[in-house]
Amino acid sequence: MRKDEAIKIVQPALTEERFKHTLRVAETAVGLADMYQVSKEKVELAAIFHDYAKYRPLKEMKEFILNSQLPNDLLDYHHEVWHGPVASVVVEEQFGINDREIKDAIRYHTTGKAGLGIVEKVIFLADYIEPGRSFPGIEKVRDMARKDLNHACWMVSRNTIQFLLSKNATIYPDSFHAYNYFLTLMNK
Amino acid sequence: MRKDEAIKIVQPALTEERFKHTLRVAETAVGLADMYQVSKEKVELAAIFHDYAKYRPLKEMKEFILNSQLPNDLLDYHHEVWHGPVASVVVEEQFGINDREIKDAIRYHTTGKAGLGIVEKVIFLADYIEPGRSFPGIEKVRDMARKDLNHACWMVSRNTIQFLLSKNATIYPDSFHAYNYFLTLMNK
Repeated sequence: MRKDEAIKIVQPALTEERFKHTLRVAETAVGLADMYQVSKEKVELAAIFHDYAKYRPLKEMKEFILNSQLPNDLLDYHHEVWHGPVASVVVEEQFGINDREIKDAIRYHTTGKAGLGIVEKVIFLADYIEPGRSFPGIEKVRDMARKDLNHACWMVSRNTIQFLLSKNATIYPDSFHAYNYFLTLMNK
Repeated sequence: MRKDEAIKIVQPALTEERFKHTLRVAETAVGLADMYQVSKEKVELAAIFHDYAKYRPLKEMKEFILNSQLPNDLLDYHHEVWHGPVASVVVEEQFGINDREIKDAIRYHTTGKAGLGIVEKVIFLADYIEPGRSFPGIEKVRDMARKDLNHACWMVSRNTIQFLLSKNATIYPDSFHAYNYFLTLMNK
């Protein structure tokens, strides 16, 4: 699918703010793809679609997960972790996007997971560091993003877990597995 | 096994400091058992043996794990998570302690896990709050220990994960599962 076609599909499904975020994620992801020799076309398409399902009604996403191959344990956790997996299935069903790397980058963009591939890493990181974000400590992650993709992804995992702990929120296991996985890669 | 017999076995395997810690954990655990209607005999025996394997040589523990039914993925994580599982097998093999609750309390005292039983919760908590400990925020956990066992255990999980994150350490998955599990119990 061409970039302009993808944007045309995604824009009406998002708020204006979220659409702008999406474009910034795409731009950031393309920059990272350039740095780390990853397919720009893949990361761009994954970025454009990553939040595509974000504003679906919760009830609809719940039904969708129950009737899909997605793990039902998603429903035991905060609904913030639902929209990535849902979008990863929708893009295939509705638009025939069946590239595994693109689909998984969309699926795991919120949590990461152990064994994340390089397209997935780029989206996971780009979503966190795009220029509109202002998390505590984000400049350190942006600096690291230019030096070491795994280390930067580990910082995203760590910061996200720290944030969720501070909110007394449950944490989807893939987030923890991602943290341990990136740390192991860094220490190699 | 009687308390005095257990102490006689454990004392020579520990440093003096660790032995004193062990006695304080036992006393704290018995206090909690009283509060939450748990078998005092079970928590006392589990407490006495919980650190029994702590000073075994790492190489010996590694061999032991490889040749036991214990999950080998323990070896992918910091050796601090090895001594509980190792002791839980040793107490059965050497001293015939085959009570599931006692063994599991010893096994999971460092990490916790999802679905922790009540004897296991008491040891997990007692090990953290015994009067010799001085972690940041420990008084809040001690206060909560008198009010709500699950909430107090959740605080232990959360504090432990925060501590490990601050040290850039890998985190054994049972620690995360425990965190989510206690949080779910609290929110019920």
